[in-house]
Amino acid sequence: MEELKRKIREEGIVLPGNVLKVDSFLNHQIDPELAMAMGREIARRFGGAAVDRVLTVEASGIAIGLAAAYALHVPLVFAKKSKSVLMTEGAYTAAVYSYTKKTENQISVLKRFLPAGESVLIVDDFLANGEAALGMASLVRQAGSRTAGIAVAVDKAFQAGHDRLLADGYRLESLAVIDSLDGGTVHFRE
Amino acid sequence: MEELKRKIREEGIVLPGNVLKVDSFLNHQIDPELAMAMGREIARRFGGAAVDRVLTVEASGIAIGLAAAYALHVPLVFAKKSKSVLMTEGAYTAAVYSYTKKTENQISVLKRFLPAGESVLIVDDFLANGEAALGMASLVRQAGSRTAGIAVAVDKAFQAGHDRLLADGYRLESLAVIDSLDGGTVHFRE
Repeated sequence: MEELKRKIREEGIVLPGNVLKVDSFLNHQIDPELAMAMGREIARRFGGAAVDRVLTVEASGIAIGLAAAYALHVPLVFAKKSKSVLMTEGAYTAAVYSYTKKTENQISVLKRFLPAGESVLIVDDFLANGEAALGMASLVRQAGSRTAGIAVAVDKAFQAGHDRLLADGYRLESLAVIDSLDGGTVHFRE
Repeated sequence: MEELKRKIREEGIVLPGNVLKVDSFLNHQIDPELAMAMGREIARRFGGAAVDRVLTVEASGIAIGLAAAYALHVPLVFAKKSKSVLMTEGAYTAAVYSYTKKTENQISVLKRFLPAGESVLIVDDFLANGEAALGMASLVRQAGSRTAGIAVAVDKAFQAGHDRLLADGYRLESLAVIDSLDGGTVHFRE
């Protein structure tokens, strides 16, 4: 998606350790026009796939998840990372390791909000090692539903996640695929 | 806002301890049509106020914050509750006590994303004791900007937040104002 790539070129900051900061428009400050356009693009790519629901994970997946769900005219559910004291009912849970924060989180969704027999589109802002996406796919499987596909904004395809998701047979749609950050420059896959 | 009140009447669940669960459309599962309509209504109410930026707090403020920012054609910034290892630059911080989770959080926004001299609209899904809203107003003040107002979806006006914000002189716009949850029923203010 050209608009996203241009924004990454203009505002992305490459840091040591293969870190790409896009916090000026994607995961701290958010450009609402771009977020909604990304949602429309995801809906276009999955338009024929009869998606029943969008699943993302808090916090930075919520904006792009909402945009995709709005464009697809389906509900959004976001998995939670901490257990609220209100969350006393049954929930599906999965363990997700965050390489950025160096912690393992449990992500969970109330069973009520992941019915069986649905086709669920997983949406997230970033794909790096694939932990979050695979955790969400596990929630969908536990619910007795199927993953229609996985849509991400920024796919750091030189890390393990891209190949893991494809090897597991998921349909992966990435709005910007990055092959390397060598030399502090973003190299997109054409 | 009638559409929101109807949804609360139909799907809201009142629990002991003055808890109103609206997790089927507002803060776990999200109804995207309703979220975007709430954003448009907030933009309508603050349309003449020359808002430069919307500020919310992760996670459940992000959806309504995005919707409001999109309708107002301004950037969204969401305050973070945990410090990412990436967040090494200067940030504004404020302490916020969560009565639901019984923990005190630091909320923070990178200084880059709260410039001085702006008019900032604070948006959140819930108003109860006002801790989150007052914490965000503190961030705005630290930045040398002013709070244009505070917009919330569900205002539990029988708790302390509503009166605290008005006593402090903030313009408060609530899409649904609740006077009590007595008898397990939602009583709206007319």
